[in-house]
Amino acid sequence: MQKGLFISVEGGEGAGKTTVVDKIESTLRKRKYTVLRTREPGGVELAEQIRHLLLHTKQMEMDDRTEALLYAAARREHLVKKVLPALESGSIVLCDRFIDSSLVYQGYARGIGMEEVWKINQFAVEGHLPDLTLYFDVSPEVGLARVKKDQVRDWNRLDQETVHFHKKVEKGYKLLVESEQERIKVIQAERPFEEVYHQALMIIEDTIKGVE
Amino acid sequence: MQKGLFISVEGGEGAGKTTVVDKIESTLRKRKYTVLRTREPGGVELAEQIRHLLLHTKQMEMDDRTEALLYAAARREHLVKKVLPALESGSIVLCDRFIDSSLVYQGYARGIGMEEVWKINQFAVEGHLPDLTLYFDVSPEVGLARVKKDQVRDWNRLDQETVHFHKKVEKGYKLLVESEQERIKVIQAERPFEEVYHQALMIIEDTIKGVE
Repeated sequence: MQKGLFISVEGGEGAGKTTVVDKIESTLRKRKYTVLRTREPGGVELAEQIRHLLLHTKQMEMDDRTEALLYAAARREHLVKKVLPALESGSIVLCDRFIDSSLVYQGYARGIGMEEVWKINQFAVEGHLPDLTLYFDVSPEVGLARVKKDQVRDWNRLDQETVHFHKKVEKGYKLLVESEQERIKVIQAERPFEEVYHQALMIIEDTIKGVE
Repeated sequence: MQKGLFISVEGGEGAGKTTVVDKIESTLRKRKYTVLRTREPGGVELAEQIRHLLLHTKQMEMDDRTEALLYAAARREHLVKKVLPALESGSIVLCDRFIDSSLVYQGYARGIGMEEVWKINQFAVEGHLPDLTLYFDVSPEVGLARVKKDQVRDWNRLDQETVHFHKKVEKGYKLLVESEQERIKVIQAERPFEEVYHQALMIIEDTIKGVE
């Protein structure tokens, strides 16, 4: 692959993204693709420091727009220092959450407005959108039940938000999927693991064929 | 004053803003106005932490757009937590540097583009522009000579940039002054202190009359 392939993975809490993308990553590596598996802030020092501010300031004390600007700043660093160099060297980049998470969480669910959050993220990414985005579609009820059952991972701040908030997240993703049908593909993620994995892999294979 | 008055003070390095505004502040207090003298990050905790990231990351290592997003985030916190409450209680806010500094330094001098930087700052300030901006106009040569002579204050990172950069800063401010003649008033700041002070005070008095 000459110019790499940028794939982001999106979805609410408990959508099962990590487990599925684990297996996709290993499949792609077996097929001799160079893969960068990453998520913001992805070990980029300044982005990690920004993330630290985001996670260690109490939600109630941080203004929503400040939060959105900080996410955009961390995104910019991670993109410029890690994602773009990998794409230039021809890698497949699998990125857990990217611009759509901000549009949905800060823009739609927190109520700033998707258009508004889009503006600062356009500034941050300068046209570098994913070639493909997989949206893992599960209802908030199923997703949150999965997270509660999951003994492996601690609950984080976002898990603790109300189901009401997670319903808004779902609605936000649905609006995005509607308006970006070319880029965002829906994975029916309430089905058994093997089926979800195969649907996701098939879509990625199609996209790889398109660029090779 | 019922709704307060928001005044920002702008200019290149060594323009003499601080000394002049010191005296204006004391004059306004003597006339029984409530005055908030501030500058970003202004003691607002999260804004201070963002500022710390900005000043302790080497310039060469920080992407220009990340820098602009972080300034916008710090601006947002300072505005929401400190400036707006003071205005609501009827104070005169004297703020050393505000949105125009980002437009000029990041937008024009670093080359991101003023329109681009304006977008993320619109997001940050949500229409809360200063009622009046005083631009202290000195040539880069005079300004930098003053800074060098000044034993009181250490040289900082911006001082160390080339005269070439400071000429771009001057040009950026001139473009802004041109396009925002209603809000931005030019102070001829190469003249003796007393004259500069009186010109600035007269402009502020006119603006106060307009809102009282």
